[in-house]
Amino acid sequence: MPELMSPPEAFKIVTWYRVLYVDTDLMGVVNNGHYFRFFEQARGEYLRELGLPYAEVEARGLRTPLTEAWAHYYASFHYDDLIRIEAWISQVKRASFRFDYRLYEGDSQDVRVAGHTLHAIVNEELKVTKIPNWLYDLLRPAKI
Amino acid sequence: MPELMSPPEAFKIVTWYRVLYVDTDLMGVVNNGHYFRFFEQARGEYLRELGLPYAEVEARGLRTPLTEAWAHYYASFHYDDLIRIEAWISQVKRASFRFDYRLYEGDSQDVRVAGHTLHAIVNEELKVTKIPNWLYDLLRPAKI
Amino acid sequence: MPELMSPPEAFKIVTWYRVLYVDTDLMGVVNNGHYFRFFEQARGEYLRELGLPYAEVEARGLRTPLTEAWAHYYASFHYDDLIRIEAWISQVKRASFRFDYRLYEGDSQDVRVAGHTLHAIVNEELKVTKIPNWLYDLLRPAKI
Amino acid sequence: MPELMSPPEAFKIVTWYRVLYVDTDLMGVVNNGHYFRFFEQARGEYLRELGLPYAEVEARGLRTPLTEAWAHYYASFHYDDLIRIEAWISQVKRASFRFDYRLYEGDSQDVRVAGHTLHAIVNEELKVTKIPNWLYDLLRPAKI
Repeated sequence: MPELMSPPEAFKIVTWYRVLYVDTDLMGVVNNGHYFRFFEQARGEYLRELGLPYAEVEARGLRTPLTEAWAHYYASFHYDDLIRIEAWISQVKRASFRFDYRLYEGDSQDVRVAGHTLHAIVNEELKVTKIPNWLYDLLRPAKI
Repeated sequence: MPELMSPPEAFKIVTWYRVLYVDTDLMGVVNNGHYFRFFEQARGEYLRELGLPYAEVEARGLRTPLTEAWAHYYASFHYDDLIRIEAWISQVKRASFRFDYRLYEGDSQDVRVAGHTLHAIVNEELKVTKIPNWLYDLLRPAKI
Repeated sequence: MPELMSPPEAFKIVTWYRVLYVDTDLMGVVNNGHYFRFFEQARGEYLRELGLPYAEVEARGLRTPLTEAWAHYYASFHYDDLIRIEAWISQVKRASFRFDYRLYEGDSQDVRVAGHTLHAIVNEELKVTKIPNWLYDLLRPAKI
Repeated sequence: MPELMSPPEAFKIVTWYRVLYVDTDLMGVVNNGHYFRFFEQARGEYLRELGLPYAEVEARGLRTPLTEAWAHYYASFHYDDLIRIEAWISQVKRASFRFDYRLYEGDSQDVRVAGHTLHAIVNEELKVTKIPNWLYDLLRPAKI
């Protein structure tokens, strides 16, 4: 098992996504359901930057399925927009944690889409399990 | 403009979806983001059964983009499951309305996924507009 | 292992799909990549009607990943179109088979999209394996 | 209308994609239909690097819908794989052009997926139209 980084304080990441034609619908905007894909991209980059790619979480016998997903759409994204996704962990509990997301166009400071996802911690049989110390020690200090 | 049905009281619909391989992920379950597609299927069938297919809503100059989407995942669906989707309108306001969804496997009474979506009423320039009487008179009595 | 039906001759199925908003793009038509989802829906219904749901194929230790996919787009589908999908098996070989698809709008006889997929027969370790007799005896007579 | 770059000879681009969980299916591999999304990403980057983002093509009154899509799957991609996509234009005709794609894992030289797409050139009413000189002069020399 690789050694984990010493965990950062109040850790937040930024990742980017260029809107494809297939993401748009006939209203000319990114369809609502696709944002959950962008959220997943951000979670993946978050854990990678924290030194623990999600594939490694799975290799250690855990899964983190969603128990809740939420998005609030304040304004639309369009074809070829460059979406800036900010993501952080906002909650770490005994057997769950929560990610928050904010989406902006390029360098703008106006939130267009906000969201969060709640994740259970389960074992390979998908049964809820207590968060192991190595994961708690990594996520808890990073929490914002 | 075709004449609308007299609106039903406390109207709810049931529609079905058979899970495809492409809906699953390597955890062996339907991926979280796909449920918003099932929600859309249910909304479309709801309006059709109410006598007002959504294409007709658009033909009358309105669009109803999402302002909020929410899903709570209690249990998973798997490949080839037949999902029963129940949907109804739970709120009708001056310039918005809300759909609620409950997803079950086959004839089961155990909710596996619950969700709702909030919709703004906008014109063809995507500017918020007051709900017209013909739409209010259709949706308001149907509300549960 | 359940007993299989006696196989039909030159077997073809018809299945239906109602186009969702999320399937369209800002050109106002169904985006090219989504047709492969409709192909999968048709394959699933084909095997089910043949008496062998694909889940049963997997329960018997086989997988049938694609080795080739092809689509020719003659005309577009739009939001709320009802797509009629015709599908049949056009080839059965030692370790592979091929499905063909034709997509029409409603009862029209004009093909809008044609396609095919080639499938390898592999075991649970995803290694190519000779088609077992029970599968050959089912698919071979059904071939058109 | 912005001035276009002098066109490069035999132009090819490389772009990257990190496989998400939502791209995988229960076989543990990227589902076949998603590759057409990766093809679109590569086309977009190709035109951008050529100095003509596709949004600009549309602003000039053209659309380039697919008339054919083809993929050959030699080997699978998995969760978190970094896909290297090479793309180039392989044909430019009076009213159509063709893109070719090759997908590799990281720096590997083994093609896992190969594909091409054929595109018609149409106007805003989606009627086939002769390729304008400014587009021919850009794409023709870039062709490999």
